[in-house]
Amino acid sequence: MIVAMQEKASEEQIQAVIERLVELGFEVHRSTGKLQTVLGAVGARVDFDIRDLEVMDGVKEVHRISSPYKLVARSFRPEGTTVKLRNGVSIGGQDVVVMAGPCSVESREQLFTIAEIVSKAGARILRGGAFKPRTSPYSFQGLGEEGLKLLKEAGEKFGLLVISEVMEISQIPLMEPYVDIYQVGARNMQNFNLLRELGKARKPVMLKRGIAATIEEMLLSAEYMMAGGNYELILCERGIRTFETYTRNTLDISAIPIVHKLSHLPITADPSHGTGRRDKVSPMARAAVAAGADAVIVEVHHQPDKALSDGAQSLFPEQFSKLMDELRMIAPAVGRKIA
Amino acid sequence: MIVAMQEKASEEQIQAVIERLVELGFEVHRSTGKLQTVLGAVGARVDFDIRDLEVMDGVKEVHRISSPYKLVARSFRPEGTTVKLRNGVSIGGQDVVVMAGPCSVESREQLFTIAEIVSKAGARILRGGAFKPRTSPYSFQGLGEEGLKLLKEAGEKFGLLVISEVMEISQIPLMEPYVDIYQVGARNMQNFNLLRELGKARKPVMLKRGIAATIEEMLLSAEYMMAGGNYELILCERGIRTFETYTRNTLDISAIPIVHKLSHLPITADPSHGTGRRDKVSPMARAAVAAGADAVIVEVHHQPDKALSDGAQSLFPEQFSKLMDELRMIAPAVGRKIA
Amino acid sequence: MIVAMQEKASEEQIQAVIERLVELGFEVHRSTGKLQTVLGAVGARVDFDIRDLEVMDGVKEVHRISSPYKLVARSFRPEGTTVKLRNGVSIGGQDVVVMAGPCSVESREQLFTIAEIVSKAGARILRGGAFKPRTSPYSFQGLGEEGLKLLKEAGEKFGLLVISEVMEISQIPLMEPYVDIYQVGARNMQNFNLLRELGKARKPVMLKRGIAATIEEMLLSAEYMMAGGNYELILCERGIRTFETYTRNTLDISAIPIVHKLSHLPITADPSHGTGRRDKVSPMARAAVAAGADAVIVEVHHQPDKALSDGAQSLFPEQFSKLMDELRMIAPAVGRKIA
Amino acid sequence: MIVAMQEKASEEQIQAVIERLVELGFEVHRSTGKLQTVLGAVGARVDFDIRDLEVMDGVKEVHRISSPYKLVARSFRPEGTTVKLRNGVSIGGQDVVVMAGPCSVESREQLFTIAEIVSKAGARILRGGAFKPRTSPYSFQGLGEEGLKLLKEAGEKFGLLVISEVMEISQIPLMEPYVDIYQVGARNMQNFNLLRELGKARKPVMLKRGIAATIEEMLLSAEYMMAGGNYELILCERGIRTFETYTRNTLDISAIPIVHKLSHLPITADPSHGTGRRDKVSPMARAAVAAGADAVIVEVHHQPDKALSDGAQSLFPEQFSKLMDELRMIAPAVGRKIA
Repeated sequence: MIVAMQEKASEEQIQAVIERLVELGFEVHRSTGKLQTVLGAVGARVDFDIRDLEVMDGVKEVHRISSPYKLVARSFRPEGTTVKLRNGVSIGGQDVVVMAGPCSVESREQLFTIAEIVSKAGARILRGGAFKPRTSPYSFQGLGEEGLKLLKEAGEKFGLLVISEVMEISQIPLMEPYVDIYQVGARNMQNFNLLRELGKARKPVMLKRGIAATIEEMLLSAEYMMAGGNYELILCERGIRTFETYTRNTLDISAIPIVHKLSHLPITADPSHGTGRRDKVSPMARAAVAAGADAVIVEVHHQPDKALSDGAQSLFPEQFSKLMDELRMIAPAVGRKIA
Repeated sequence: MIVAMQEKASEEQIQAVIERLVELGFEVHRSTGKLQTVLGAVGARVDFDIRDLEVMDGVKEVHRISSPYKLVARSFRPEGTTVKLRNGVSIGGQDVVVMAGPCSVESREQLFTIAEIVSKAGARILRGGAFKPRTSPYSFQGLGEEGLKLLKEAGEKFGLLVISEVMEISQIPLMEPYVDIYQVGARNMQNFNLLRELGKARKPVMLKRGIAATIEEMLLSAEYMMAGGNYELILCERGIRTFETYTRNTLDISAIPIVHKLSHLPITADPSHGTGRRDKVSPMARAAVAAGADAVIVEVHHQPDKALSDGAQSLFPEQFSKLMDELRMIAPAVGRKIA
Repeated sequence: MIVAMQEKASEEQIQAVIERLVELGFEVHRSTGKLQTVLGAVGARVDFDIRDLEVMDGVKEVHRISSPYKLVARSFRPEGTTVKLRNGVSIGGQDVVVMAGPCSVESREQLFTIAEIVSKAGARILRGGAFKPRTSPYSFQGLGEEGLKLLKEAGEKFGLLVISEVMEISQIPLMEPYVDIYQVGARNMQNFNLLRELGKARKPVMLKRGIAATIEEMLLSAEYMMAGGNYELILCERGIRTFETYTRNTLDISAIPIVHKLSHLPITADPSHGTGRRDKVSPMARAAVAAGADAVIVEVHHQPDKALSDGAQSLFPEQFSKLMDELRMIAPAVGRKIA
Repeated sequence: MIVAMQEKASEEQIQAVIERLVELGFEVHRSTGKLQTVLGAVGARVDFDIRDLEVMDGVKEVHRISSPYKLVARSFRPEGTTVKLRNGVSIGGQDVVVMAGPCSVESREQLFTIAEIVSKAGARILRGGAFKPRTSPYSFQGLGEEGLKLLKEAGEKFGLLVISEVMEISQIPLMEPYVDIYQVGARNMQNFNLLRELGKARKPVMLKRGIAATIEEMLLSAEYMMAGGNYELILCERGIRTFETYTRNTLDISAIPIVHKLSHLPITADPSHGTGRRDKVSPMARAAVAAGADAVIVEVHHQPDKALSDGAQSLFPEQFSKLMDELRMIAPAVGRKIA
């Protein structure tokens, strides 16, 4: 940590800061310049709140030098993490993996129809929500465990792995027999109680970026799970809130190369939630793969206008097939292929 | 709802939209102009996803005319809501109420010292966190039920009511005997499972705005609780995330007059979390009262540099006393007084 | 325009709004429902400030139905605009055009070296700034007209067209003999005096989106120039300001498909300014082409660490060649090719 | 400047960074720790682009320690700047100054009517725009020099000083005989050509914060003018662009205490542009004064519904009088009074 004192800081103020740092367990190096004194502090707590120094008298600025995260940092595994799943599917390797399916599991017929479509088109993982707490108490709330069973059955029938969202600690053991990947939604990115339990889980987790979360904060949430023992993590960019109102959120494609630089973890893009509008999903899925995404997750529905949730952002089957063809052309440009 | 068709929309496209609206239970009024056709749709579901129409062929724009909320709207209770509490304290009436206390309850000595200070200075409600899930598993996690007991004891001793944050459904019954107001934090503003249970609670709830939530979204979360039966609600502005990095968040003071216009519910401001820096807390608390806030909630600590959390944003006792004096001078300018 | 009255609006309030609308030249259609009255207003001024109605008593919401822009709207030219330039280069047609060059023209040697590199790699248009007003009065301020001359010369020698930024009205005639496209920078997107003069110019203009401008506002600025008579316009996404601090700006790739839907004008992406960091430029350039961009503009420098401005975001020559190869592979996925 | 190397940075990479720093004129202090090497660089150019180091191999983070501004820093004039004007009016002293008037000067009758109203109510400075470049070429474009003459005349008649917006360099000498303060609008905050000329002007300048500008960027623009020789500067917060759509912009009240901490320059708030809606102007003006603003600037119109621009955000005369009474009550709470 670097503490830059104000130009007119008194010796007394400087000493007070030094004492505080020593008290906190830091080793302090003082560098007194013509204009100002700068203190370097090494060696102590990662979870230190730097504002505690910022508000001290005579302090101008405080910078954290060491990363607030260690385990998720690229330097921890320079070669990158490949999350290996069943059926020869892995995320973070040479294949770009496509996850597809409906927003919600609505019925056996709906799910099996869509699973067949996405499997034939080349998806490797089936997505679908089983728990859907909604703004209106009158809206469809998801099929719960029945939905999870259908996901597993459909996955087996059509050769697809399964990903589904977990929203509460109590759902972790319930979902365990049915899913290959737990998905943590954007609203739960900083639900540390949930993350703590998922850190103990023995299945991979895909963590979505919160709509107001910086990339660093997403990495910190992943660090929390890794510190708990779960190293099989996948990150997911799904759009941030900006002043632009035409799209629901602004899908931050630049998060993809940034995550690849800062961390060894693979990163997925979700253009369906990231744009909220069907006609923007394919362009943004293509952009994500071109920018280096390790996977994309896309909503597909055979009858989007009858979907019980998020129909407006679900692709029609023929749009999805066309997108798969386009992605197959783009992947080689980044040295990848579509699984 | 108003659906504006594109200028070149075909009659077939227009009919498809009309059919869709009728299917959804709307009564449709068609107005065919020289340039474009506009459809007015009245009478159906509040929870309708307008994007389902936006993505139809030939549709240009869709506007919701009726509010997505009813119960929290100003028109529901034009005279405004006053949340009546014990000890003659009420929020939303003529008094501006000050809630104060430490970020976390750390010990009996700490809490009683601070409670005495804030009570003498004129606060009416004691704040303090009992559950503190933190980024680092090594950080202080709160005293739990023991903290709640201390809050109640300190409140009784110094004539203060108690507010504390609830983070999980399971904590609702646990907290019930100890607190006067349940606080819902910014990260849980859209935790609909939690809101559903608080809708059934028989105690007032203070709902904080999420850092990426619009004012309308905060009102919708309050609507969710009111629909569940809890009419004793208080809103709280605590800062939104913007591009400005000097402060942790940007406290949106304009939310105060806006909420007063749109809703009958009282609104509080939290300048401690809204700015994250001690030296900005008093100016922003003054600004909130001048803008018409019904209450302010402020962090105070007798030894902020020893606080186990958020010390950097806690006022020193003498700063708090000075702030109370300033608020007493400002309140009459808006026809109020400090309780 | 649609004016939705409040549910409790009085007849008097409704009449006042109707009178106001009529006074403004609108034809008013009244629709009185069980709960509320809605007024449809057709036919008058495009430049009307809807807030004038919003603040009237009894008014709940006002929505503009007709677009605030006409000439730039997709419906004005459903087939799309192709801006035809010299040398068989055109933007908005089947070719994806690459513009490349240094941030600033620094010297003949520098410019000619870079022009040769980018020309050989496949760029068709040479970029380079001649006017560089800088934060520090001691920094390099650009070569002025001398820089423009060098651009033209280098362009002729290496078969490249020329684009350069115009910052003041007085520079328009000065630049006229030297450039093929005038570039309007993000800070001038709403400099209406400058736009007015460029509307009269007889050369194409590339208009960059302001860092705090919505897509609609960018279209309105283009409308302003088209209304002045210049139909040869190209838009450019170059990043918006968000809360994310890792990149200078967030390049909004979704603006590309959105502009293509709303407008007939071609759109370019500028990943150099959009990210501000060399290592993010290539991924974002690839993403832009995959999302359907009609052109990309990229900063290249043979000695970026000696560049007088923006060296940190300039590609090395070999990075640029590699990027061109990647773009050649991606373009066919969107039915295009690199010129 | 502090350059933190990556943990695995090679000695070669470290040497390259050191050489680069020396080349740039810095004096370098190396501190080699167990985990990483940190380089401190002192003494060179203020206008250095730190990204040039960030993109070097082996570099993890670069922090500027010295402020990018000097002259506007609080330490340059710890006692604060008071801008002294005619008639005993000064900004930054004990009086809180109110500037008021119409958005645009529309006619002698309009301006004189409003000037009389605001003067009687206690304003000390008359505001009014003479140049109004507007989105629509058919809209009112301002009265130009005629408007300036009217401002001066009205000011003399009613004992008011005059502030008006300057938009182009050519307007500076034109306005010189008529105004007491040049106003630089939000869109021109980084128009460095204009700022350079105003740095040479012999009249005070009020600089408005751009809607996407950080507080530091506003200070840098002020630094630019001070470096040019003009020390009579006033800053102005007028709202930033955020995701909240209910108000046009979010008036960042916290900028007021932040500017007071970082700089010696006085700061004004503009709640009219900051909110864009009449009913939010008075609450936000009160909030600004309560937070410590040195002045407020407010739009007032005797017939806002007939105003040629921004009528929706103009106060009625009686609202303005009431606001002045409220401000008179609030000012003493911050040790000030209304002039």
